[in-house]
Amino acid sequence: MEKKYMTLALKEATKAYERDEVPIGAVIVKDGQILAKAHNQKETKQNVAEHAEMIAIRKASKKIKNWRLSDCEIYITLEPCPMCASAIHQARISKVYYGCTIGEKNNSEIIEKIFSTTNRNQKVTHVENLNLDECHQIIQQFFKDKRK
Amino acid sequence: MEKKYMTLALKEATKAYERDEVPIGAVIVKDGQILAKAHNQKETKQNVAEHAEMIAIRKASKKIKNWRLSDCEIYITLEPCPMCASAIHQARISKVYYGCTIGEKNNSEIIEKIFSTTNRNQKVTHVENLNLDECHQIIQQFFKDKRK
Repeated sequence: MEKKYMTLALKEATKAYERDEVPIGAVIVKDGQILAKAHNQKETKQNVAEHAEMIAIRKASKKIKNWRLSDCEIYITLEPCPMCASAIHQARISKVYYGCTIGEKNNSEIIEKIFSTTNRNQKVTHVENLNLDECHQIIQQFFKDKRK
Repeated sequence: MEKKYMTLALKEATKAYERDEVPIGAVIVKDGQILAKAHNQKETKQNVAEHAEMIAIRKASKKIKNWRLSDCEIYITLEPCPMCASAIHQARISKVYYGCTIGEKNNSEIIEKIFSTTNRNQKVTHVENLNLDECHQIIQQFFKDKRK
């Protein structure tokens, strides 16, 4: 785990915040090289699948011309939803670091099940909630603004 | 449930088969109008997210310029993976009909959990495995060919 990649993911989340999108950012790294950076664009693109993680996976796969993102790490500012967790798993990304959760117990249980499924060479070897203040803050501030 | 939409989904699956993709097709319908048809293009596009369901959701959302596919039905030739199930759920598609399963118990358990999560207006009200011979056949034939 290298903090600098989460800092970059947070920078991506800030871009989403500025565009009135739920502020989530993702960065995919392989052997110290950044393959992709992305932020949530669900509202902008009007498509549920345009989460930061999905865009980052698409960009990284395009970059290396392969859907297999083996030995890659993904840094996400928030715990992934099941869609993104399953895409990460299917892409064979090996390590997942996320900045915080927003306390959705059901989500945590589902993604734990997804990540621990071991068929078809899908190996997520490490999943870690880094529980970072900055990641909590940006998402909490966004929803606080929305409630106003 | 109308059989004709599954027939169209099967036609999509056949297109995938012909392109050496795992043969899965999907059709999204709203009030008797077809919003989108799609087939799996994971290998062609080299992206794990290019499943038939994800492409159909993207196309349908583009067509109605809205990520909310409320009151839509999706017809899929095979039980969805967790990525697609979660996208269906987040898009608020209300009814899911699939043609068969390939017996992945873990998958069935995970998607049941996803579909039954009720937060944020996500309401999948009906999920049904139609258990159709044609849907079984095309997927079994594909993997039989691959083993040769």
